[in-house]
Amino acid sequence: MLRIITQQSEAHTELQRIGGRTHGSETLQVEETVRDILQTVRQQGDRALLDYTAKFDGQTLTLSQLRVSGSELDAAYQQVSKDLLDAISLACRRVEAFHRQRVPKSWVQFQEDDVILGKRYTPVDRAGLYIPGGRAAYPSTVIMNAIPAKVAQVPRIVMVTPPSEGGKISPAVLVAAQEAGITEIYRVGGAQAIAALAYGTDTIPNVDVITGPGNIYVTLAKKMVYGLVGIDSLAGPSEVLIIADHQANPVHVAADLLAQAEHDPMAAAILITPDGGLAKRVQQEVQEQLQNHPRRILTEKAIAHYGLIIVVDSLNTAAELSNLFAPEHLELEIAQPWDLLEQIRHAGAIFLGNSTPEAVGDYLAGPNHTLPTSGSARYSSALGVETFLKHSSLIQYSPKALSEMGRAIQTLADAEGLHSHRESVRLRLEE
Amino acid sequence: MLRIITQQSEAHTELQRIGGRTHGSETLQVEETVRDILQTVRQQGDRALLDYTAKFDGQTLTLSQLRVSGSELDAAYQQVSKDLLDAISLACRRVEAFHRQRVPKSWVQFQEDDVILGKRYTPVDRAGLYIPGGRAAYPSTVIMNAIPAKVAQVPRIVMVTPPSEGGKISPAVLVAAQEAGITEIYRVGGAQAIAALAYGTDTIPNVDVITGPGNIYVTLAKKMVYGLVGIDSLAGPSEVLIIADHQANPVHVAADLLAQAEHDPMAAAILITPDGGLAKRVQQEVQEQLQNHPRRILTEKAIAHYGLIIVVDSLNTAAELSNLFAPEHLELEIAQPWDLLEQIRHAGAIFLGNSTPEAVGDYLAGPNHTLPTSGSARYSSALGVETFLKHSSLIQYSPKALSEMGRAIQTLADAEGLHSHRESVRLRLEE
Repeated sequence: MLRIITQQSEAHTELQRIGGRTHGSETLQVEETVRDILQTVRQQGDRALLDYTAKFDGQTLTLSQLRVSGSELDAAYQQVSKDLLDAISLACRRVEAFHRQRVPKSWVQFQEDDVILGKRYTPVDRAGLYIPGGRAAYPSTVIMNAIPAKVAQVPRIVMVTPPSEGGKISPAVLVAAQEAGITEIYRVGGAQAIAALAYGTDTIPNVDVITGPGNIYVTLAKKMVYGLVGIDSLAGPSEVLIIADHQANPVHVAADLLAQAEHDPMAAAILITPDGGLAKRVQQEVQEQLQNHPRRILTEKAIAHYGLIIVVDSLNTAAELSNLFAPEHLELEIAQPWDLLEQIRHAGAIFLGNSTPEAVGDYLAGPNHTLPTSGSARYSSALGVETFLKHSSLIQYSPKALSEMGRAIQTLADAEGLHSHRESVRLRLEE
Repeated sequence: MLRIITQQSEAHTELQRIGGRTHGSETLQVEETVRDILQTVRQQGDRALLDYTAKFDGQTLTLSQLRVSGSELDAAYQQVSKDLLDAISLACRRVEAFHRQRVPKSWVQFQEDDVILGKRYTPVDRAGLYIPGGRAAYPSTVIMNAIPAKVAQVPRIVMVTPPSEGGKISPAVLVAAQEAGITEIYRVGGAQAIAALAYGTDTIPNVDVITGPGNIYVTLAKKMVYGLVGIDSLAGPSEVLIIADHQANPVHVAADLLAQAEHDPMAAAILITPDGGLAKRVQQEVQEQLQNHPRRILTEKAIAHYGLIIVVDSLNTAAELSNLFAPEHLELEIAQPWDLLEQIRHAGAIFLGNSTPEAVGDYLAGPNHTLPTSGSARYSSALGVETFLKHSSLIQYSPKALSEMGRAIQTLADAEGLHSHRESVRLRLEE
């Protein structure tokens, strides 16, 4: 049963409990295991990948099966429906159109004081995308990771994903990869896949940046190799926070809450509303929709542990509580969603109005569905083209410009006790 | 003595050795120590900060001394020269002017298909800046961390820096902080300061993002709290790579190399040139300038271990080797620096021409001097306003837009086995 609470102080405590539900899950034991996997792959390369795949995925592969073959890629198209292919292709186009907007561009500025300044953007050389397997196949995850890398014009993009029964990779995933422009795909998952992307093996190239969601082993492995390579973020379980008022439809709100809860027993689904009546109706409706839910047990677990309805005195309070939680997904199913927007400080993605269920953004609205979780929307943003770009600052001084700034630079160098910093300027001005 | 090598294969090996010089420095023992400090500060708060300050900095403070007082801030102005104050203020203005350019702006787009999409940028609520103490005072580090946070309009910015003898903080640092607009300063350094910023204590607020360079303890602490808070990067020791040709002045090149080496015995200073004569003259000149260097021992150590001159067959080869190293700072002291730029793929900052010593960018050219080290320019960039900003994706669909996209979304939801994702759309379209 989805709990309803009305006390402000309890709301704070509960939001903190739910927001911090993954803290401490990085136990020393899991760390030990991941560290061991990283080291073994670093030392033994491909051999270790095959061993771990046998051990963790229960699939015995040969070295030549590690990379998905061209014929397997071709065959995937025969195994998906025309409808699914069309939907994947539509999603690719829409996600690409959004990601092509406002891509940072290199610039150079010639100043009057004989100084040239600028920024030069370049893509990383190689990107590695981690696509989870397991419970289900996620073609949308492929699209959301691959398209930004493509738009950034990364020269080499590789994908890794764990094999399922018979060493198979979901045809939907293989089709999504190809529609997004990726054909270099390796059959490996878990911390061992992250190790392969970070260190390289004979078969799998080491990359410059690793993106994509995974379980705690994958996430911890990403954290450990961060610094040697770049990463997108440390993804935790998914979450939605819905702010709804009297005019919201409880059937829709309930479906949206369950659409989050059905992801994972650790997923969080929270409704904040000033309407006590709506709260009750959503609570009932969630129960009803759970009856015939194909993932009932898992979804009920999430709802029971990390589901919550908070009844508040006003939409302003709702916004405040939402900022405290800093949700990955925020739905504003209220009469005037744009009015409340000004008060929202932290959220990965915001879905405005009654006709924008999160699923729209999960699949094809355009913005990325890889979003900051566990409160990290306080300081970070969606995966994007920027994840695969970096820039170099550009500076050119003329002799005249250096002479004009020379004294101040030498003063600062002296203050910091950096002799040669000063000399590098003084010697140039001497002549 | 600065070594000269001419073999391409040796150049590769050496650049990899130097680039990887800090790898493995995160020993398990250091990790253990840092983990322990984090946990103790989390549990004991201010008490632990005072204990660690006594232990590591040798300074006994009372609780009320933790925060730098208003009178101390005022007094700092009496303790710096007029020249230094002017130079600090000039640097603040120029760094701010550069950082105000191309700041990402929120945008909303009303599409023809009844869809509204956009991105809304907001600053983090609180930022924490770590400013190292120890060997020297670095007012420039204050400026380079504080100005981007100010430009991002972060509502609360706090600074931490370890106390030196008598609990003092360098007046230059205190003046730089105030000129940059920071007045909330705490007298604490090391991993304990990072812990305070991540978890909060009674005195020090927890923040959303922590920036600034530090030693291995500080860096490791940042890596460990990453995820709970955002961080700028994992800074390693500084490095410069200079590409110079026949027309470069060996005296200037030598000074620039030493200006890097004097930072740290782990600093790297590399020259790549097609001109064997220049190589020899720079080698000699480095020896000469070292004679009277006030930090001769430290600087010689860096030059001996991580200094290198590589003689190559062409500027193209020089660019290739530079990309392999992905230097923090790259100087192009060549006749046509803009021509070579196209071939440079990875560098934190690029200094073009003979009159742009790195010191220009270290202090006041405008671009940030907090740059990716240890090869991380392959995937990351300078500290910037973006470090303190994040965005929320904005999505609004009309009922008509949802109906047009409804089928594709449901198809994708089915392919992923996500029942309520489909229902959240189907139920809305039913009516």
